Amino acid sequence: MTFISLPETNTVSPFEGIHGKVIHTDHQSIAFWQIEAGTLLPEHSHVHEQIAIVTQGELELTVNGVTQVLTPGQVATIPSNVPHSAKALTYVEITDTFYPVREDLKG
Amino acid sequence: MTFISLPETNTVSPFEGIHGKVIHTDHQSIAFWQIEAGTLLPEHSHVHEQIAIVTQGELELTVNGVTQVLTPGQVATIPSNVPHSAKALTYVEITDTFYPVREDLKG
Repeated sequence: MTFISLPETNTVSPFEGIHGKVIHTDHQSIAFWQIEAGTLLPEHSHVHEQIAIVTQGELELTVNGVTQVLTPGQVATIPSNVPHSAKALTYVEITDTFYPVREDLKG
Repeated sequence: MTFISLPETNTVSPFEGIHGKVIHTDHQSIAFWQIEAGTLLPEHSHVHEQIAIVTQGELELTVNGVTQVLTPGQVATIPSNVPHSAKALTYVEITDTFYPVREDLKG
């Protein structure tokens, strides 16, 4: 489908406190997450390369042992298989892109 | 670099009326564009798969001959080598992701 309306797309919730919409193409996935304040995302890693862009709120992100608080306008890049974790200091909206496709997030 | 501040990133302007910030990883590029109202982006195509998300304003997008006006919350997916063109009906902010990397947008 060429044109997609996010409100009409299924909501997925991979962790407690995190829900959002995920769009998949042949090689990429893009996720638009809403994260409840105080949510802890435990350390994890995946083969997928990731780009994270905070669009609302404050997210404390740790990538390979380095921690930074991301606010709107700040971007983090997470290479393949690098461990990362996060804590939502406020209500957060974040956009994540992945390569290759996140088959596990197909709803 | 893991953490990147968009305001501190070089601005690129591939077409008149369009400027923005582009981040590259090993396999993906993500671009945050600001487009002046009335800007016409002539039909073009590229090998890169693209996902376009309007975050502000109204963009008339034509993909493979099908036209739709995109507003915030609407997403378009553009497969590899498919021709597309656009017209900014208002001032527009849009995020584009690409696979593979847009070497031509490296500033």
